[in-house]
Amino acid sequence: MSTKPSLPQGTRDFGPETVRKRKYILDTIRQVFELYGFQPLETPAMELLATLMGKYGEEGDKLIFKILNNGLGEQNNISKARVAFENVLNGKNDPNLTERALRYDLTIPFARYVAMNHHQLTLPFKRYQIQPVWRADRPQKGRYREFYQCDADVVGSRALLNEIELASIYQTVFNKLAIPVEVGINHRKILAALAEICGGADKLTDITIAIDKLDKIGIEKVRAELIDRGLNNDQVSVIEKYLSINGSNVEKLTTLTSLFTASPSNFPSNLGLQGIADLKYILESNQNLIVDLTLARGLNYYTGAIFEVKATDTKMGSIGGGGRYDDLTGTFGVPGIPGVGISFGVDRIYDVMEEANLFPADVHMSAKVLFFNLGEAESHAAFQLVQQLRANNIPAELYHEPAKFDKQFKYAERKGIPFAAIIGSSELNTRTAKIKDLRDSTQQELPFEQITAYFVDTTTNRS
Amino acid sequence: MSTKPSLPQGTRDFGPETVRKRKYILDTIRQVFELYGFQPLETPAMELLATLMGKYGEEGDKLIFKILNNGLGEQNNISKARVAFENVLNGKNDPNLTERALRYDLTIPFARYVAMNHHQLTLPFKRYQIQPVWRADRPQKGRYREFYQCDADVVGSRALLNEIELASIYQTVFNKLAIPVEVGINHRKILAALAEICGGADKLTDITIAIDKLDKIGIEKVRAELIDRGLNNDQVSVIEKYLSINGSNVEKLTTLTSLFTASPSNFPSNLGLQGIADLKYILESNQNLIVDLTLARGLNYYTGAIFEVKATDTKMGSIGGGGRYDDLTGTFGVPGIPGVGISFGVDRIYDVMEEANLFPADVHMSAKVLFFNLGEAESHAAFQLVQQLRANNIPAELYHEPAKFDKQFKYAERKGIPFAAIIGSSELNTRTAKIKDLRDSTQQELPFEQITAYFVDTTTNRS
Repeated sequence: MSTKPSLPQGTRDFGPETVRKRKYILDTIRQVFELYGFQPLETPAMELLATLMGKYGEEGDKLIFKILNNGLGEQNNISKARVAFENVLNGKNDPNLTERALRYDLTIPFARYVAMNHHQLTLPFKRYQIQPVWRADRPQKGRYREFYQCDADVVGSRALLNEIELASIYQTVFNKLAIPVEVGINHRKILAALAEICGGADKLTDITIAIDKLDKIGIEKVRAELIDRGLNNDQVSVIEKYLSINGSNVEKLTTLTSLFTASPSNFPSNLGLQGIADLKYILESNQNLIVDLTLARGLNYYTGAIFEVKATDTKMGSIGGGGRYDDLTGTFGVPGIPGVGISFGVDRIYDVMEEANLFPADVHMSAKVLFFNLGEAESHAAFQLVQQLRANNIPAELYHEPAKFDKQFKYAERKGIPFAAIIGSSELNTRTAKIKDLRDSTQQELPFEQITAYFVDTTTNRS
Repeated sequence: MSTKPSLPQGTRDFGPETVRKRKYILDTIRQVFELYGFQPLETPAMELLATLMGKYGEEGDKLIFKILNNGLGEQNNISKARVAFENVLNGKNDPNLTERALRYDLTIPFARYVAMNHHQLTLPFKRYQIQPVWRADRPQKGRYREFYQCDADVVGSRALLNEIELASIYQTVFNKLAIPVEVGINHRKILAALAEICGGADKLTDITIAIDKLDKIGIEKVRAELIDRGLNNDQVSVIEKYLSINGSNVEKLTTLTSLFTASPSNFPSNLGLQGIADLKYILESNQNLIVDLTLARGLNYYTGAIFEVKATDTKMGSIGGGGRYDDLTGTFGVPGIPGVGISFGVDRIYDVMEEANLFPADVHMSAKVLFFNLGEAESHAAFQLVQQLRANNIPAELYHEPAKFDKQFKYAERKGIPFAAIIGSSELNTRTAKIKDLRDSTQQELPFEQITAYFVDTTTNRS
């Protein structure tokens, strides 16, 4: 009966310190979302399999965790279940075996929610959502099968004000977290125009895939990949010219404008100039963005401005990204709802903050003070004081039973409790407590009546 | 391709207002847990099926949501998968078909965590956990397949201080939520002693199941059920005597003591008197508990004090419960870790608060003020002010595009935004804004420089 327990591969327990640090990050982000008028949404972990299938590409579909129907073994279900199982073995989903699955991201559930509720929603609908998602990826360092996503989207508005505000949310959040970042911006129409110059829209995917790797593999290898992908030397040299554009934001956009106006093949659609105009408008209100023409973002559904956040002091790569899309809910029968959204990479943000020691010193503090338990009468008096502190919103503890000093000190130390309050029999007689600051071992004796005030005063505000 | 989307049976989306109200409840509970030195734990949604199976009884096992292994259709897995599937049809679990499942409660994952980490944990370990669980129950009013549990437990301590503090947590939380409650307390050893008087420990389950229903079905039907369950008239009359004990806590415990000391069959174990002594000790520190001798709590693993919370102004039934248990982790190979815990019924608490209109009026407020968008130059000025407000932690919005007054008023109204700030061309010239309180339609004109101070002053603190 007794088995040595373990966790499924790729999943994690979060102990107290980790939960507190994660909460610090998520509360900071949530607070900024709220400052910008975004509203919270939560969707169930389980979605109908039909809602998810076909939305993430063939590879994505395979990584969806499917839930087995209950009651398969019941008499009247057995034959149906057998047929269903053979279908599943053949790569077809069959609702007689599995009709539910775990959420793979937050975007499709959000789209499903908007499609189901768009008549009641006040548009533009600004929602944020912070929930776990599940993917049957092969686990490896930094990649988990259960992890949090943290998204904010505005749907039902084409105004560039949304892009301006989302970029500002990034800057505000990372400023509050004290993580130095660069928020890069580019535009899908600029990339599309580049593809047009290079022989047509069908080259867009090849080009974006290749230039997305510039950071990692360098220009030589990007050039080789472009040739491999069937672009000719003339086209590659246009792309090189594009990638070599540098200078300030204004300089970059000016050079880019010349590149596009010099190429008559861009004229029919004028896409490139539209993209440049959008970026100029956004930059007018937000001068701290960095135009990054090599930024491509993998997802094909982006159609306008795209964002990516990099922590400048680490090599962590992207810790956030997003962009504008045209049609969130078309796949659910509600066309014509455009949107723009951003996403925070919570696990990577955590790693950056851990590496750079950016969490506040008291983030893992549980109680502010531990009252020692030195006997029945003593602990009775201590308990009254502990209850007084709690009534004044000061987290406090009484050690659960009489025990040696050592043991009680160790408990305080291991829980990160900064003060010990000691009431022995002599202190009980004089109605005082020894208050020991465990960080510097200083000590003072206070009358019972002054203890609450002492801790109210020394407590820094913690949310 | 386009399908009308829906949700799996028994699951729910939580829109903005509901998330905010739930957060109000959960934050209140969390804050009190923290005041008492409890620390947060989060475990993954997925556990190994082997961790969960056999822990919830035969009926419980059937209600566990099992996750289908990925890659079943791959060549080298097919024959194994077929065998595994036949095993599952025959009621046996087979890791070649499913080896993971969704968490069914928070207790077993907590036990698994403690068993895996007990060498590193500081005992007593006071943890709280607020996460969803999943059960394949038949959905019905008030019963969902995905719902939150909210638990606090102390493990590694037999001290009654823990019972005293947990009872106090209940009182503090419901006091903060403004829900009038009665926190009832009883003791498993008292029930066990009653069973002994009635012919032996094997009667305990029958007696507890029957008297647990007293509230709902009345004494006549309880008596009939006891007879049905094989108790004789003498035994039933002892139970009736037990159930009729009333008066103050002291009176109840005094009468109960006589009942037990008058029954020599209780003497060998003295269980009843032990239970009474525990209750007296707890009541000495917490006079607001109500001794409720009819309280039984269904779960068989309780061994000491048991608690139940009822909202006194509604017929909602229990909105919380808990108790002491002897052996949390024995099933995972780590014996001898006792504990005591309580649980909050979040969905029912929500319903009670909704029914009695107990949520704060501003709980669903998103932004504090909506700045109207009345053109390019006007909105530019408004945006500067909005950003200033946000920098001062006042949630504010600028309407996303120029639009008719009506539309912008309606947006504010539907999002519960209490103020509108209107900057038209004449206001832009004088660098003022009309500030309209949408709740009473009063209006005033303020210079740009005074707007932030105005909202900082009128803003009540919101976390």
